[in-house]
Amino acid sequence: MSRSVPVIDPARSPVVPDPRRPADTPYLRLHVGEAVERYRRLARALPGTAIHYAVKANPDPRLLAALNGAGCSFDVASPAEVHAALTAGAVPSALVYSNPVKRRSDIAYAAARGVRLFVVDSLEETAKVADAAPGASVLCRLVTSGEGSDWPLSRKYGCSTQQAIDVLRHAARLGLDPAGVSFHVGSQQRDPEAWAGPIAASARVFRVLRESGIQLRLLDLGGGFPAALAEGCPPPSAYGAAIQRHLARHFGRHRPRTLIEPGRGIVAEAGVLVAEVLAVVHRGDTRWVYLDAGVFTGLVETLGEAIRYPIETDRDGGRTGPCVLAGPTCDSVDVLYERTMVDLPLDLTEGDRVRLLGTGAYTTCYSTVGFNGFPPLPTRLVS
Amino acid sequence: MSRSVPVIDPARSPVVPDPRRPADTPYLRLHVGEAVERYRRLARALPGTAIHYAVKANPDPRLLAALNGAGCSFDVASPAEVHAALTAGAVPSALVYSNPVKRRSDIAYAAARGVRLFVVDSLEETAKVADAAPGASVLCRLVTSGEGSDWPLSRKYGCSTQQAIDVLRHAARLGLDPAGVSFHVGSQQRDPEAWAGPIAASARVFRVLRESGIQLRLLDLGGGFPAALAEGCPPPSAYGAAIQRHLARHFGRHRPRTLIEPGRGIVAEAGVLVAEVLAVVHRGDTRWVYLDAGVFTGLVETLGEAIRYPIETDRDGGRTGPCVLAGPTCDSVDVLYERTMVDLPLDLTEGDRVRLLGTGAYTTCYSTVGFNGFPPLPTRLVS
Repeated sequence: MSRSVPVIDPARSPVVPDPRRPADTPYLRLHVGEAVERYRRLARALPGTAIHYAVKANPDPRLLAALNGAGCSFDVASPAEVHAALTAGAVPSALVYSNPVKRRSDIAYAAARGVRLFVVDSLEETAKVADAAPGASVLCRLVTSGEGSDWPLSRKYGCSTQQAIDVLRHAARLGLDPAGVSFHVGSQQRDPEAWAGPIAASARVFRVLRESGIQLRLLDLGGGFPAALAEGCPPPSAYGAAIQRHLARHFGRHRPRTLIEPGRGIVAEAGVLVAEVLAVVHRGDTRWVYLDAGVFTGLVETLGEAIRYPIETDRDGGRTGPCVLAGPTCDSVDVLYERTMVDLPLDLTEGDRVRLLGTGAYTTCYSTVGFNGFPPLPTRLVS
Repeated sequence: MSRSVPVIDPARSPVVPDPRRPADTPYLRLHVGEAVERYRRLARALPGTAIHYAVKANPDPRLLAALNGAGCSFDVASPAEVHAALTAGAVPSALVYSNPVKRRSDIAYAAARGVRLFVVDSLEETAKVADAAPGASVLCRLVTSGEGSDWPLSRKYGCSTQQAIDVLRHAARLGLDPAGVSFHVGSQQRDPEAWAGPIAASARVFRVLRESGIQLRLLDLGGGFPAALAEGCPPPSAYGAAIQRHLARHFGRHRPRTLIEPGRGIVAEAGVLVAEVLAVVHRGDTRWVYLDAGVFTGLVETLGEAIRYPIETDRDGGRTGPCVLAGPTCDSVDVLYERTMVDLPLDLTEGDRVRLLGTGAYTTCYSTVGFNGFPPLPTRLVS
């Protein structure tokens, strides 16, 4: 509790535009109602499963307030996100603190604000939670392969089923409430069957502990629910059906309470990044289109061309051809799509608007404070 | 000139720590005097060459003021950087606007503030500068291989010698002043001989244009001057000697005025990123050390493990062993060194300080606005 309490306020920016004339582009056009609709669609696809919106995907306070009003719970990763969720009107019991490795004083801060559910994935972290949030409930995170996801998770977090059993037994010994298991199948997961293996592994942990007298009750199915983006994806109902099937198969009559932590699946398609063409330059046989938004103003997920956003322009309808798409900073890393070029209108020119769809998640929050002197990506709400 | 004028102010942050108790770590400890000393060392190594500090590397206003006071000029990439350099006391003639692709209104803004020297690399951009800054001086950027650099430049910028000849002739026709040629050998360039090829290519452009009556006079040798970091690098004098030798060989008695644009070479070793160990976790046979600073709080250049910072800890001196070094956010990309692990003390533990050396460049400015709710990396000056 001696720790400072950072407050997320996207309205404040270290790069201060001249108030007489704010820059027109780039900006994120965010449709909060669309995000709420995506929340409702996921809730319908997974009846009986609590939806905890992953604040990290887009912490816009107006978005959080709207989701809270619609009945959504929250997944938080830091004191600032705890504060943001509670400020949006959430009750502390609607929060899961899912960052598996936390600063001790951050756990204490969350506990003092009433948060009672923490994810751990090691004996070390379990002891830390027991110290900083005595008696709290814990979920132990299992490692997964990340196969089938566009932004897979590494070995950074998660443990084996045997380690999870040890961790949850240790939690009980330390006076914590061993509530259940969590896992994450990787962000932008295109395969609904990706949940099969982790659900089976979770069921083993539940069974072994049940046999030794510890009754787990909660299964955190993580995030990974995708946005359509350029390649499309199965509908939420396909994910709901696959998950229900695997829960029934592996848990039978011992079916636990479940929760999910979607971020992208709720907010990505509610956002459109509006950019402007700075220049079209022909380099040898290659057409380069330079935008005023790039890797350092929100489009980090294009690194390695991992995430491909659908693109619309002012000139759609005519002839198109391939081009490399690059950002405005003089850093050569600031190239969005080069290995696989983008098909854009041949008459696209300086000053034209380019709209990157499905950009509501992991853009404004990934912006730099102002690299090259270009301001962070602002948000404009539409309804 | 209708464009807004963003102002870089690192003291303002979208994540507002509780003023009663600012977070202790992470932060960048910046020794401005050390940066000034590095500037002087480069100036001594390259007598007669103007040093334009690349503001993008670290735009701290106190750093800019100190460099300006020592006689350093500036390399800028945006209106905010123009404003920052002029606010630091620079005269407009001490600025080179080196971003090869610019927003038209940004060129006009810079011209209105008195900036007269712009880099271009295409016919399109040349026409834009002629329109927005009539009569300005231009340098045409050549493409280079980037070989030998840790953070190589892509094909994003630069043209062939023949294209450069066309661009500079076009500039003259449009009423611009064709001043010379620029190139960039790639950031953190470890090979002083990397300048050989581009200097030879530049000399060809100078010669061809001289023969047709256009007298170029200025050669921008770019940045790339390295920091020692983990692997060490040749001293500034080795770069100075190689560059002088290649200038003499290729330009002979037609030696142009020269300038360089060092960023990292001036400020990297003036900075130390001070972080704290959040946790040490054993995952199978691997020791994971989690810090409170990571990819999203300034350490972007560790992506792909491109840049390796030397590391000191509170526990140095005893036995060491390999570990994976990871950042605090729950994003799995937030891992600093995993493929090639880091050797750190075996008794390193939660709460210990870890100091990443050579982090004065491309850290504070690469910080996100607050991903996961963790604030951007603040700067503390030491003297």
